[in-house]
Amino acid sequence: MRTKVIILLGVLFASTAVYAQQDTMLFDTPNGVYEVINHRFSSAIFMRSFMRVQAEIDAVIEKPILVPVPKDPGGGYTHEQHKSNYKHMYQAGLVYQITKDKKYVTYIDHMLLDYAALYPTLSLHPVKASSEPGRLFWQTLNESVWLVYTSIAYDCVREQIPAKDRAIIQKNVFYPMAEFIMQGTPNNKKTFNKMHNHGTWADTAVGLIGYTMGDKTLVDKALYGTERDGKGGFLLQLQKLFSPDGYYTEGPYYQRYAILPFMLFAQAINHYQPDLHIFQQRDSILLKAVKVLPALAYKQQFFLMNDALEKTLSSAELVAAFDIAYAVSKDPAFARFAMKQPDVLLSSAGLATALEMSRLAGEKAVAQQSVCLSDGPEGKQGAVAVLRHGASDGVCFVFKATSHGLSHGHFDKLSYSLFNHGEQILTDYGAARFLNVASKSGGRYTTENKTYAKQTVAHNTLVVDQTSNFDGSKKKASHFAPHIDYVDITNPESQIVVATDSNAYASLGVILKRTVAMLTIEKGEEPVIIDLMMADAKDHKMHTYDLPFHYSGQLIATSFDQKLYPDHLSALGTDNGYQHLWKESDTLIKEGGNRNVHFTFLIKKHFYSVNTTTLSDMGPIEAMHLRIGANDPSMNLRPEPVLMYRVQNKANHQLFASVLTTHGLYDLVGEKTTGSQSIVNDLQVSEEMDGTITFKFKYKNKLVVFTQTNKENHVKINYHL
Amino acid sequence: MRTKVIILLGVLFASTAVYAQQDTMLFDTPNGVYEVINHRFSSAIFMRSFMRVQAEIDAVIEKPILVPVPKDPGGGYTHEQHKSNYKHMYQAGLVYQITKDKKYVTYIDHMLLDYAALYPTLSLHPVKASSEPGRLFWQTLNESVWLVYTSIAYDCVREQIPAKDRAIIQKNVFYPMAEFIMQGTPNNKKTFNKMHNHGTWADTAVGLIGYTMGDKTLVDKALYGTERDGKGGFLLQLQKLFSPDGYYTEGPYYQRYAILPFMLFAQAINHYQPDLHIFQQRDSILLKAVKVLPALAYKQQFFLMNDALEKTLSSAELVAAFDIAYAVSKDPAFARFAMKQPDVLLSSAGLATALEMSRLAGEKAVAQQSVCLSDGPEGKQGAVAVLRHGASDGVCFVFKATSHGLSHGHFDKLSYSLFNHGEQILTDYGAARFLNVASKSGGRYTTENKTYAKQTVAHNTLVVDQTSNFDGSKKKASHFAPHIDYVDITNPESQIVVATDSNAYASLGVILKRTVAMLTIEKGEEPVIIDLMMADAKDHKMHTYDLPFHYSGQLIATSFDQKLYPDHLSALGTDNGYQHLWKESDTLIKEGGNRNVHFTFLIKKHFYSVNTTTLSDMGPIEAMHLRIGANDPSMNLRPEPVLMYRVQNKANHQLFASVLTTHGLYDLVGEKTTGSQSIVNDLQVSEEMDGTITFKFKYKNKLVVFTQTNKENHVKINYHL
Repeated sequence: MRTKVIILLGVLFASTAVYAQQDTMLFDTPNGVYEVINHRFSSAIFMRSFMRVQAEIDAVIEKPILVPVPKDPGGGYTHEQHKSNYKHMYQAGLVYQITKDKKYVTYIDHMLLDYAALYPTLSLHPVKASSEPGRLFWQTLNESVWLVYTSIAYDCVREQIPAKDRAIIQKNVFYPMAEFIMQGTPNNKKTFNKMHNHGTWADTAVGLIGYTMGDKTLVDKALYGTERDGKGGFLLQLQKLFSPDGYYTEGPYYQRYAILPFMLFAQAINHYQPDLHIFQQRDSILLKAVKVLPALAYKQQFFLMNDALEKTLSSAELVAAFDIAYAVSKDPAFARFAMKQPDVLLSSAGLATALEMSRLAGEKAVAQQSVCLSDGPEGKQGAVAVLRHGASDGVCFVFKATSHGLSHGHFDKLSYSLFNHGEQILTDYGAARFLNVASKSGGRYTTENKTYAKQTVAHNTLVVDQTSNFDGSKKKASHFAPHIDYVDITNPESQIVVATDSNAYASLGVILKRTVAMLTIEKGEEPVIIDLMMADAKDHKMHTYDLPFHYSGQLIATSFDQKLYPDHLSALGTDNGYQHLWKESDTLIKEGGNRNVHFTFLIKKHFYSVNTTTLSDMGPIEAMHLRIGANDPSMNLRPEPVLMYRVQNKANHQLFASVLTTHGLYDLVGEKTTGSQSIVNDLQVSEEMDGTITFKFKYKNKLVVFTQTNKENHVKINYHL
Repeated sequence: MRTKVIILLGVLFASTAVYAQQDTMLFDTPNGVYEVINHRFSSAIFMRSFMRVQAEIDAVIEKPILVPVPKDPGGGYTHEQHKSNYKHMYQAGLVYQITKDKKYVTYIDHMLLDYAALYPTLSLHPVKASSEPGRLFWQTLNESVWLVYTSIAYDCVREQIPAKDRAIIQKNVFYPMAEFIMQGTPNNKKTFNKMHNHGTWADTAVGLIGYTMGDKTLVDKALYGTERDGKGGFLLQLQKLFSPDGYYTEGPYYQRYAILPFMLFAQAINHYQPDLHIFQQRDSILLKAVKVLPALAYKQQFFLMNDALEKTLSSAELVAAFDIAYAVSKDPAFARFAMKQPDVLLSSAGLATALEMSRLAGEKAVAQQSVCLSDGPEGKQGAVAVLRHGASDGVCFVFKATSHGLSHGHFDKLSYSLFNHGEQILTDYGAARFLNVASKSGGRYTTENKTYAKQTVAHNTLVVDQTSNFDGSKKKASHFAPHIDYVDITNPESQIVVATDSNAYASLGVILKRTVAMLTIEKGEEPVIIDLMMADAKDHKMHTYDLPFHYSGQLIATSFDQKLYPDHLSALGTDNGYQHLWKESDTLIKEGGNRNVHFTFLIKKHFYSVNTTTLSDMGPIEAMHLRIGANDPSMNLRPEPVLMYRVQNKANHQLFASVLTTHGLYDLVGEKTTGSQSIVNDLQVSEEMDGTITFKFKYKNKLVVFTQTNKENHVKINYHL
């Protein structure tokens, strides 16, 4: 069917100088629309979505159209009303395309005429909270989103709207808005040409409205940047923002968000300019980018790395991503992902996906595979490794050794998070933000996002001298990425990744290296995680090394007698995120003995332990129990617990060796508790002159020896029981 | 069918001086067993349970029998092993009864012989943590539970065990254990005769073993107390521990726990001594007690009042309760409750319930009704009111104005908790305990249960002069209960309860009164809760009134500018639970103006606000944000938030008037936030000389006036819009 479409488009191109306007093409092809009209009843899944949308828009269409003068920030009335408006125009357009009921045309026509009356009267939005304010919305970003959906709506009904109305709408809304998005402010122009999700939305908005208005210049600017020189625009974003593995550099939360304009614009390009072979570009990079989305989630929820809120694979953006990807590729994997979503697109792509979903319905679920996704346009800016074991709610360990990730990146080099039994065990805080809640910094990222959530100490990685990576400078961070030294994840029972970061603490002369391994010690038992966190200091100056473990649930036991501050608490520090941590306990663990420390915590029905040791010539271990929440005047932070180990000394080599385990059962309903104590002990770690590290520990009385040799830049890892 | 059984038993009685032993009767009748053997295949539900149990016991029976010398506390190896043993004997007994496979007899026989070798060698358990230590277990309670299950197991296979083994087992285990439970220590004797769940377990253990060994004396002691004078024992417990409405005085958590021995012993009594008409006693009090269980739960989970952990309606204890109740009464309500459970009993009661469950399978769910359950044997010791609205995950407001509830009671007079959208909104802390986790106070209640969880300030009720009700004395508290002044819960859109407590703060000369109402202001909208918390001081001395709101989720806004302690925290007080609260903010709200305060918080997708005002002649309001966790050396407490209002003055009448609302939507997936701001404002409350209280507020611009007149000991409540 796609072949047919391409031929048809070829014909259209041959007959017009610019782009054809006789048919709607932005969201579906004429053939596609024909398919949907005639065959929609063959899919109950498609019809469920269609009827839901139709019922929703039919209820709305009865009510008066409201196009208020912009006034409120995100979450406020005018903001939400303009959001509803584009959503409803979009719904009306798609339902018109299928039903051909003129009432939807009238609705869109009238609403757009209202916008045509309002828009020319607007200067910048009164809430000046953003560096890129819009006119309808407080951020230009929202304006772009408005134009993306409205372009599709307009394209569906365009030929039915009286020509004089079309002229008014295009002149008073679409052209000025496209201009505004491209260069309404200097920042807007920068963003439009930028390699960033805001840029993708802006390009897509201008590209889509360009196609439907038949304006090649607008489309070219969207594709190649304002100067049409290829130094900005959508095609360059395709090159720069994804790694060869399809990982989007801002991380999963924004990959989910950006994939929607990427796929909507690509779909339109595919219809109007098939010769660009947009979906085949860079070895089908867009399809790869869609395909890795589920790999970046645990139990449907995206990992919280970088600025991230809790978003799932059933987010609306992904309906479009999965359905379009399926229609383009006919790869059942995409239809499989789509099965977790409540809806399909109201287009031939959605219908094709729905039919494939029915075909796959009886299939058995397949366990997710471990992946190591490179970052950077060349795939050379580190990677994120996702090590999994067992069922979809089994163990999942996420090791982040990526580039910074643009403006939403966190200073979290070589950090990790851990999931098991459906829960987040060792956590990534994500972002400090209450989306669109007006009383919380107007719904934007709160101050604490920068002062806490982005800082190194807010992550499960080593903090040197109580400072953040790259001194907390995004600019500095943007130039560097960790190096992946070693990856072996083919055997689920023994998965190993090693990464080095030579830059995050370069100003202190410290190089970080971390080895993480997921090993099944006893067949049938849950795997353990081995973590060797190393720091090489070039100098022999005194350094402080802090290794925090951000955990969920409730503390059950510590191997040391915690020295608590029973009735007075103070903040741990004054900056770099330390000012936001209450110091609840501070225990200097005496030297000598086996240098073993551990803590155990409980989440729902399972116990988790982190057992740690250090090299014998390291200073004494100081253990602190911390709680997030100090210096937080609006109580924006969640009061989560942290167990942090600190060593201070002049040695030029530091090493924290840990084993993370799941054990026991806390069965309240069955009134049965077993295995609440750590199953690992007698940890010993040593390092030889040639860099060989030997880490031994007992796992339920079984001796495990993990050896890592580091010769000629190759890492060789052995372990035996 | 029940009639037939009774006739059969009558014959047996006529033929023996004591109780017949030829047949198994403790858990099922001979006719019942016949039914199960022949008709079990007619129920897939029953067979699923049967096959699961059979598979479990068949796997166990292959392994060596382990009867270790007692050593460990709850959660430890020997404790859990002896628990497993009684469970497996019980399973083996029931499966034998159906399959007649002798391997199960051998298993029980051999295990009991091992116990017969061990038990005589034991003195008191080495872990002396309880005031009633056992011999096999650290608590006699566990010993009683062991004997309950073992009695049933033994009864199933008794006639197949060689006579000489029976003699050894009875002589070395059953008799000495029954003696030990009854009077092994002075405390055991006290407990055996006590009105308390430990007593019920003890009586049931001795009663069941008495029946199966044919020892009338033991049975009589179990039924009538050690002196067989009716001043103790099971029958008196039936009179004393339940209210006429079936509410168990210790609260839902222990009602769930105690109902199992009550029903197991009653079932046996019904088989052996049908003339006692045990299930008809006190207007079928046992059936009533089973029937109210679901009324004391929200979304299957029992309310956390008094000492309580998170237990659900699918707890194993309730399988027996619902199935036996159904078999006795044939009331489909019990089979309906049983449908939420994973299993049925392996008896004719379970089979009958399973068949009824199949019959009911297509039924539509019925919304739960509001109830007001009296407390106390005469129903005159206050009540717990459960006000519900809408679906099972809709609004549920629990107002606790009960008697103290024995040793597990909390000092929480007139407190409440609130649920909505499937979540706990205003919380009851429940108990501080990690069940059977050895590192946490050996799995018992932790110290903080007494020093925090039981204290008044740990609940959503008024605290006078920073002391707990009855000065925290259980002994004092046991003599008194609140009075229910007014109940009208028949109209779901307007439910009102008023209660007075004249005793909790009698030593300070203060009487408490609280009016709570669940009102639907706008049809189709969620109801609001109105709360008038009143205190009458007889003197004109200075009193401090603290009204804490224990909430879930995250703070979104306060109507006042919180004065936080940014980088230093201290404990709020030194005793009565105040020592466990960190003072995070302390804001003196200026007098004058409308005296309105509110705070808003977010739980998952919904916003909740508490709007409060006071009488105009009360002192200024001080608002404190607190967090649980100070002076908690083992970090046993959960760091939950509390918003507390304080007024201090000499007035002889104090009144806090609040409105609790649910509003808005925080839809992260749909990226839509609406209605995050409180929908209530302009609160005004006034009191006239005759005690009439007028509470006015605006609800979305609609004026609500709530008037309460208090004449001639009658409460008359009006509200109009």
